[in-house]
Amino acid sequence: MHPADNVAIVANTGGLPSGSVTPDGLTLLERIPQGHKVALGDIARGQEIRRYDVSIGTASHDLPAGSWINEERLTLPPAPGMNRLPIATRAAPLTRKPRPATFLGYRNPDGSVGTRNLLGITSTVQCVSGILAYAVARIRAELLPKYPNVDGVLAHDHTYGCGVAIDSQDAEIPIRTLRNIAANPNFGGALMAVSLGCEKLQPSRLFPERDPLDLVRFQDERNSGFDAIVTDIMARAENHLQRLNQRERQPTRVSELVVGMQCGGSDAFSGVTANPALGVASDMIVASGGTTLFSEVTEVRDGIEQLTARAISSDVARDLIDWLAWYDLYLARGGVDRSANTTPGNRAGGLSNIREKAMGSIIKSGSAPIAGVVAPGARAERRGLLFAATPASDFTCGTLQLAAGATVHVFTTGRGTPYSLEAMPTLKISTRSDLARRWHDLIDIDAGPVAEGNVSLEEMGQIIFDQILATASGQRTWAERHGIHNSLALFNPAPVT
Amino acid sequence: MHPADNVAIVANTGGLPSGSVTPDGLTLLERIPQGHKVALGDIARGQEIRRYDVSIGTASHDLPAGSWINEERLTLPPAPGMNRLPIATRAAPLTRKPRPATFLGYRNPDGSVGTRNLLGITSTVQCVSGILAYAVARIRAELLPKYPNVDGVLAHDHTYGCGVAIDSQDAEIPIRTLRNIAANPNFGGALMAVSLGCEKLQPSRLFPERDPLDLVRFQDERNSGFDAIVTDIMARAENHLQRLNQRERQPTRVSELVVGMQCGGSDAFSGVTANPALGVASDMIVASGGTTLFSEVTEVRDGIEQLTARAISSDVARDLIDWLAWYDLYLARGGVDRSANTTPGNRAGGLSNIREKAMGSIIKSGSAPIAGVVAPGARAERRGLLFAATPASDFTCGTLQLAAGATVHVFTTGRGTPYSLEAMPTLKISTRSDLARRWHDLIDIDAGPVAEGNVSLEEMGQIIFDQILATASGQRTWAERHGIHNSLALFNPAPVT
Repeated sequence: MHPADNVAIVANTGGLPSGSVTPDGLTLLERIPQGHKVALGDIARGQEIRRYDVSIGTASHDLPAGSWINEERLTLPPAPGMNRLPIATRAAPLTRKPRPATFLGYRNPDGSVGTRNLLGITSTVQCVSGILAYAVARIRAELLPKYPNVDGVLAHDHTYGCGVAIDSQDAEIPIRTLRNIAANPNFGGALMAVSLGCEKLQPSRLFPERDPLDLVRFQDERNSGFDAIVTDIMARAENHLQRLNQRERQPTRVSELVVGMQCGGSDAFSGVTANPALGVASDMIVASGGTTLFSEVTEVRDGIEQLTARAISSDVARDLIDWLAWYDLYLARGGVDRSANTTPGNRAGGLSNIREKAMGSIIKSGSAPIAGVVAPGARAERRGLLFAATPASDFTCGTLQLAAGATVHVFTTGRGTPYSLEAMPTLKISTRSDLARRWHDLIDIDAGPVAEGNVSLEEMGQIIFDQILATASGQRTWAERHGIHNSLALFNPAPVT
Repeated sequence: MHPADNVAIVANTGGLPSGSVTPDGLTLLERIPQGHKVALGDIARGQEIRRYDVSIGTASHDLPAGSWINEERLTLPPAPGMNRLPIATRAAPLTRKPRPATFLGYRNPDGSVGTRNLLGITSTVQCVSGILAYAVARIRAELLPKYPNVDGVLAHDHTYGCGVAIDSQDAEIPIRTLRNIAANPNFGGALMAVSLGCEKLQPSRLFPERDPLDLVRFQDERNSGFDAIVTDIMARAENHLQRLNQRERQPTRVSELVVGMQCGGSDAFSGVTANPALGVASDMIVASGGTTLFSEVTEVRDGIEQLTARAISSDVARDLIDWLAWYDLYLARGGVDRSANTTPGNRAGGLSNIREKAMGSIIKSGSAPIAGVVAPGARAERRGLLFAATPASDFTCGTLQLAAGATVHVFTTGRGTPYSLEAMPTLKISTRSDLARRWHDLIDIDAGPVAEGNVSLEEMGQIIFDQILATASGQRTWAERHGIHNSLALFNPAPVT
C-alpha cells in the first residue's frame, strides 16, 4: 500500500502455499490465506508493523521475512489520545474538476431531491406496528397498482416509543432519528404518522413543528376497532399516493445528491480495492458540489489524527473530537472499548485488529476536506464530505445515514452481505471478484479487478460514480429487483424501562 | 380497594362533574375523570395517600374531601430500600383445589408442550433478514398449503448479532434470549438457523450444544447467490414442515401450561378489574400444577417488600433482590431511575406515579407464593408462579417471556393496545367495557363488568382461565384471526459498536 510498509497482503485467490516465491524473490515461510499479511523483511519483537504507512501495532515476537502476520502476532497499540491532534493541516480543497453529469431526481417542496418516490409512514411506537404492517400490505396490493409513478409504500418500523427512558438526555438521538427519517428526500415531503395514544413518544414531541399532523391515533374515540383503523390508514395513504403519483423525475445536478457510504463484512481487500475506489467516487461527487457521508465511529477512532487534519476548520475538528470522545465514554459505560470491533469474519479475511481495519475504512472518504460532522440522528445541514458520527454496526449506521438525508447508499463488502434498506437504493460493491462471481445476483459492482491490476482506482471510481448516478436516476439495484431489505435499527443509547 | 384507603376512583364512564354526590354522601369539589382518584376525607399536606392499603405518596398540599388527586398533588416516595425486607413471611401454599380441566397441546420430544405447531427459523444476525423474510414469504405461499397441520412459519427477526459489544458481560442476555426463543415449545423441537458467516454471533456460540446444526450460511462457498440461498432455505424448511405436519394435539394437563402475563397501556382500572381477575386465573393455573410468569421490573420495584414476603424461600428472595438491584444499577448507568416509568397514557388514565402503578401491576400475580426467578432471556426451569425479571417495555417483556418458555400470552390493557406476538397466542383483556365495545375486534376478554359489580373477580378469573385453556387448545385470538403481530425486541443492555 505504501513504499514504507513492512507488510503486504497476498492477493491470490485461495492464498499461497509455504515455499511460494514472489516476483520480488520473497519466499513464504508458511501458507498464507488470501487477504492476509506477509512480512516483507525480518521484523523483530516489539518493532512496528506498518501498513498504509501507519503503525498497525507491534510484533509480539520475532517474525522473519515471509512470515504470516495475523492477530496473534500483532499487539494492538493504545487508542490515539485526543490532545495535540493536528487541526485542519491537510484540508486543501480538491483540485478535481466538477463533473458535467446530471441525474434524474424528484424535486421536493423544500428544495431537496429524492432518488425514489416513496410513501413512508412513521409510527410513534412499536405497539402499532402489527396493524400498520397489515395496512401497508393491503395498500401495496390494493392501492399501489393504481398509482404507477409511486415506487413503493413502507412503514418506518422500530422498537422505540414506549418502555424507554424518554427523559434521558440521550433519548434525543432515537427521537430525532425517527423525525429525520420521515423527512428524508425520498419521501417527497409527505408526512403521515400512526400513533397509539398513550405512548411516551407523543406525536407532538416527535413532530413539534407539524401541527396539524396527518395522524391516525388508535385510541381516539372515533376509532372503533381494527377494521376502522385499517380503513382510516388506507384512506389517508391514498391521499398521499394521489399527490406522489403526479411527480416526475427531472434532470438534477450532482450537487443535490447525498450519498451514504458504508462498509460491512470487511476483509483486507476492502482497503485496497472497493474502499479507495469509493473514495475516488466520493471525491468526484464532492468536487461537483454534492454530499457524501462516511461514518462508523469505532472504525475511524484509531485514525482520529487523519480526520482532525482533514477537518475544514477548527470547529469541525472540535465536533469530530467531541463525538469520538462521546463514543469512548458510551463504550466505557458499557464496560468495553473500541477493541469490541473486528469480527470473526474480519480476522478470517486478514484484518488483524481495529487499527488496521480503521485505515481501510477511512480510505473510502477519499481526499476531500471534511466539511462538517452530523450528530447521530441529525440531518446533514451542509454539502461536501461529512462525517456522520454513527456506530459501525451496519444496520444502525444505515438507519442513521438515512436520517442524515442520504438518498443513495453505497455499501462495500469483502466477506459478502446482502444488507440493504427499503428507503434508499443500496449499491453493493465487492472487494474481490470471486465474491462478485459467486454472488452474481446480489453484488452490483465488482471492484476486484483493481487488485488484479486490470483497472486503476481512478477508473473504478468513475464506474462507481456512474453507477451512483444511474441508480439515483431510477436504475434498480439487485436488492430492489428481489424486493429484499433489512429493518431499521434505531440507535438508543438510553435505558429500556 | 381496601377499607383503610383514603382515596377511591371514579368508575363512571366519562367521569363525574363537580358537585356530584356519591351514595355515601361525598360531594365532588371538581370534575374528576374516569379512573381518577378522589379524596374520601380531608387529607392534610404531607399526609400519606393510601390505595390498596399501601402509601402511594404524600399530599403535596391540603386536599379537602372530594378533591381530585392527580400526579401534581402527590409526592412520589423514595424507592423502598433493599435491606431489612420481609423474607418468605407470606409464602403459604395456595389452598385452592387443582382444576380437573385439560387442554389440547402438542407434546415435544423434550417433554414440553406447545399450544401452536409452528416452524421458527433463527437468524444469527440482522444482515440475513432481508433474504430470510423473502424466503419465509415464499414458504408461506408455496409450501405451507401442502402441510395443513402446521400453523405457520416465521423468522425470529432481530437487530442483534453484529456491531455489538459481544464480549461484554451483559451480552449473554440477548444471546440466551435468541437461543431460548428457538427452544420455545411452540416450535416443536425443530431448530433451523440462518447465518451470514462473518458475524460476531457465530452459530456455534448461539447454539453451542447443537452440532450438527441445521444451518444455511450465506457466505459458504456453495451458496452461489440469492437464488441458491433462497432455494436452500426453502428445501430445509420443507423437511421440517413434513415432520411438523405429522403432529396432533393431545389432551394435556394444566401442569404443562406456561402462561406469560403482562399489562400495557394501563389505567386506574387495571388494578381493579383485569389484573386482579388475571391474578385469580393465575392462582387457578398454579394450583393445578401449571406455570405463570409475571414481570416488568420497574413496575414491581416499588412493591419489593410484597415480593420478598411472597418468595417461597430465602434463595428466591435473594434472586429477586439481586435482579431488582441489577436494574437499579442499569437505570442509574443511563442517568435515570424507576420514575422513568409511567406514561402520558397512564397519567391520563388516573395512575399518578410508579408506586400506584406498581400496586396495580403486582396484583396480576395473584396470591401464590413466588416459586422462582427467571433471569432475562433465561428459560423457566421450574413450575408455579415465577417472576421473570424483564423490563416493563411491552415488546421487550413479551420477547423475554417467549424466551422463558411461555406458550400463551395474556395481556391486560386499560388504554388499549393491539400488541401481540406471532410465536404465541396473545389474549387481550380490557379493564373497561367501553374499550371492549369500541375495540370489539381486538379485545378478546372484557373484564369491565367487574367494575360495574355485575361479575365477581372469582367469576372473571374463571372466564379468563377457561379462555386461556381454549386458546391453548387452538382457539384463535383476534390478532391471530387478523394475522397481526409485533416484532421481537431483544433486550441488549450492552453497547452497540
